[in-house]
Amino acid sequence: MSRNHDTTDRQLLSQLQPWLDAAAVVTGNAVDPRYGDDLSGKGGGRPELVLRPRSAVEVAEILRLCSGFGQKLVVHGGRTGLAGAARVQPGEAVLSLERMTAVEAPDRAAATIIAEAGAPLQMVQEAADAAGLMFGVDIGARGTATVGGNIATNAGGIRVLRYGMYRAQVLGLEAVLADGSILTSLRGLAKDNSGYDLNQLFIGSEGTLGVVTRACLRLHPKPATEVAAFCSLGSLDAAIALLGLLKQRLGPLLSAYEVNFSPLYGAMIAGMAAPAPLPAGAPVYVLAEIQGNQAELDGERFASVLMQAVEDGIVDDVVVSQSPREFRALWDVREEANRFLFAIEGLIGVDISIPLLTMAAFLREAEAAIRAKDGSAEIYVFGHLGDGNLHYQVDTTEPAAAYEIIYRGVAACGGAVSAEHGIGLDKKKWLNLVRSDAELSAMRRLKAAFDPHNVLNPGRIFDIA
Amino acid sequence: MSRNHDTTDRQLLSQLQPWLDAAAVVTGNAVDPRYGDDLSGKGGGRPELVLRPRSAVEVAEILRLCSGFGQKLVVHGGRTGLAGAARVQPGEAVLSLERMTAVEAPDRAAATIIAEAGAPLQMVQEAADAAGLMFGVDIGARGTATVGGNIATNAGGIRVLRYGMYRAQVLGLEAVLADGSILTSLRGLAKDNSGYDLNQLFIGSEGTLGVVTRACLRLHPKPATEVAAFCSLGSLDAAIALLGLLKQRLGPLLSAYEVNFSPLYGAMIAGMAAPAPLPAGAPVYVLAEIQGNQAELDGERFASVLMQAVEDGIVDDVVVSQSPREFRALWDVREEANRFLFAIEGLIGVDISIPLLTMAAFLREAEAAIRAKDGSAEIYVFGHLGDGNLHYQVDTTEPAAAYEIIYRGVAACGGAVSAEHGIGLDKKKWLNLVRSDAELSAMRRLKAAFDPHNVLNPGRIFDIA
Repeated sequence: MSRNHDTTDRQLLSQLQPWLDAAAVVTGNAVDPRYGDDLSGKGGGRPELVLRPRSAVEVAEILRLCSGFGQKLVVHGGRTGLAGAARVQPGEAVLSLERMTAVEAPDRAAATIIAEAGAPLQMVQEAADAAGLMFGVDIGARGTATVGGNIATNAGGIRVLRYGMYRAQVLGLEAVLADGSILTSLRGLAKDNSGYDLNQLFIGSEGTLGVVTRACLRLHPKPATEVAAFCSLGSLDAAIALLGLLKQRLGPLLSAYEVNFSPLYGAMIAGMAAPAPLPAGAPVYVLAEIQGNQAELDGERFASVLMQAVEDGIVDDVVVSQSPREFRALWDVREEANRFLFAIEGLIGVDISIPLLTMAAFLREAEAAIRAKDGSAEIYVFGHLGDGNLHYQVDTTEPAAAYEIIYRGVAACGGAVSAEHGIGLDKKKWLNLVRSDAELSAMRRLKAAFDPHNVLNPGRIFDIA
Repeated sequence: MSRNHDTTDRQLLSQLQPWLDAAAVVTGNAVDPRYGDDLSGKGGGRPELVLRPRSAVEVAEILRLCSGFGQKLVVHGGRTGLAGAARVQPGEAVLSLERMTAVEAPDRAAATIIAEAGAPLQMVQEAADAAGLMFGVDIGARGTATVGGNIATNAGGIRVLRYGMYRAQVLGLEAVLADGSILTSLRGLAKDNSGYDLNQLFIGSEGTLGVVTRACLRLHPKPATEVAAFCSLGSLDAAIALLGLLKQRLGPLLSAYEVNFSPLYGAMIAGMAAPAPLPAGAPVYVLAEIQGNQAELDGERFASVLMQAVEDGIVDDVVVSQSPREFRALWDVREEANRFLFAIEGLIGVDISIPLLTMAAFLREAEAAIRAKDGSAEIYVFGHLGDGNLHYQVDTTEPAAAYEIIYRGVAACGGAVSAEHGIGLDKKKWLNLVRSDAELSAMRRLKAAFDPHNVLNPGRIFDIA
């Protein structure tokens, strides 16, 4: 749509302002530069217009008018996304959910909670905890990442093995379509097959099909005990064998299964203030966690399966947490990976799914190919092995070649170019490696049906052909 | 679309036949009357044309041609649906998946299985079992209901509490759109956020957006032990309290929580060959099940929580299975409800979700209102209390009034007019009680985007406005 920017902007603002309070419309120099920030360091640009509604009705009016004027919008939650979806592009106004942060008290009987989209994940976790319940998703960015952003990317994190991704937590949504329709489905029923489940459209579609404004989320009973074990192992095969053993012997008690490959562990503990749980030097480290309902028995059972794994030669060494403090300390080591990696300038990182059966070959072949291009490249890999999801980082002078090697390798072994971070702006050139023309065409059909003027997060995931 | 039936049919057939083997196209008197059967007893009509493809490619060619000719299709799986979706309407041809019943050997490492849409659920269960794994969904119609039909209705059943509905089992689908595009996503990854999750479109949309031809389904470790307990309780409140206690104390061990209200239990055991586990006369009966990983310990733990519930006065009497045979016998009592109810001519039945907090009031008020219309009405209620899902049956001379009372009551208390059976043809007049105009309009928008000629299961769920 060809637009005369100044005239259109003035007309849009004149129609928006009667609906919105003064703090809801920020323009020009009054716009805080943080709206232009981007975790990738690629910069975006400071937007000319930031809209900060307080309710779904205000979001609806904004979307209706912006659709009419062809004003493109980029939706902002906590801006912690790792695929560039929130990076402001020329001509885009920001729609920020930052004033919609209410979290209701949990419904204890139904084990549900209703939160506005701008509420940080941690607020939901804390509200659940205060009611004696637990929220099933946890990610490193919990303090900043919002419920809406989590839903838009179908966030996963560390306990997908037990509780599933965000899709499994969403019992209902309130979402606004580009034409201003508000879809409200917040009854929080565990089972509801009354027509299409429209909520699914908005989970993982990265804000391109509508703007989520509220969510009804599933909560779980709070476990009576949490125990973490930190293990060193001789190979990925051993780590996969241990995963199988723990699943078989502990069933649903197993709540997380994280992996950290050499040389990442050694490099990160070198700069860590706290003592390392195990010495560096092993090829693979695993953090396994159980959440149990019998405080002592479940921990003993976990320890006994681990001891058997040591006796069987699957695990070389293991430390099991004996207190909540030790439990927390083991998780701090896991989170140290992010602190270490974020400090490396120019590091490239991808978030991939790989079938366990082909993972060892993928790692071997990708490393050889990357080193063939750049003999001094450093490769740092950790992730959620229980879900087949690796975070794979490369410190290299040949980033373009490394991306190419990794993503083509992922596609060749039946993996996914994004396990949990999404596609955003940064990965869309790789999407056709794992999605067929028929799938991409069906995605565009959905986009055209729900956002015919292409105003919502345009160009995220795919371009309109 | 106005059609000259005979000419169009001949043209359609002449274009289909080169693609299909002789057994794939059945017309006129050669059509077996069973394609016109309908569980509701409402009859449909024997179709003029039955198409029986053997592959997604054949399904694609059928859909492409039928879209072009405006030939409406009703998709048939096992025809066990309870909402009339498979009932043949005038002018509809049947697309039966009955020749696509292949079930691959499970992938043990990934704990997944790929099955064609026409395979009965039980084939998947048995293939999983033979590989030392378990499929998470079980329903009474397991021997006949197909994977494709299960997906189309997002089937639930008895272990949703632990494993979720079908949506939670689907890791990927192969589905054919009305225009003949084939969407294939069978990698079976636990985490994949590479663009829209198109699989979600086909789960629970009752065959109106595309035809599922294959599915990659999640499997679980087979439990080491299964124990069932059959309890009598004084009230629904007591049953809800027991559910809370079991969830809190047993966490994910709890795998089913079924309820059966008076007078159903007494009526059904009167005609049962096997001895009843507990005498009739209590207001409420519960069948609770655990699936554990420690053969003796988990059963003891279950029994000890139940004994505490007896001591606390929550449970009046309880029988706990001591062997696989006793376990099976308690489930047979649960399934006796269907045998008893199917024998009652003219019985009306609904499949509803009700929030636990309002369930007692709903039951009381619905019963009073139904009896005010028909003093001799009998009301039989059982269901999946752990999910808030009741199967509510009425033997009445005033069925229309009873439907009205039940569905309006459901809507008033924030429930769902279909928890797991779907809307089909039979419940669409009630859909607007629980879905807003904006939601219905969004559903129609999806239908128009994916089936613009309205050839796939037309008129199921909603009519095109």
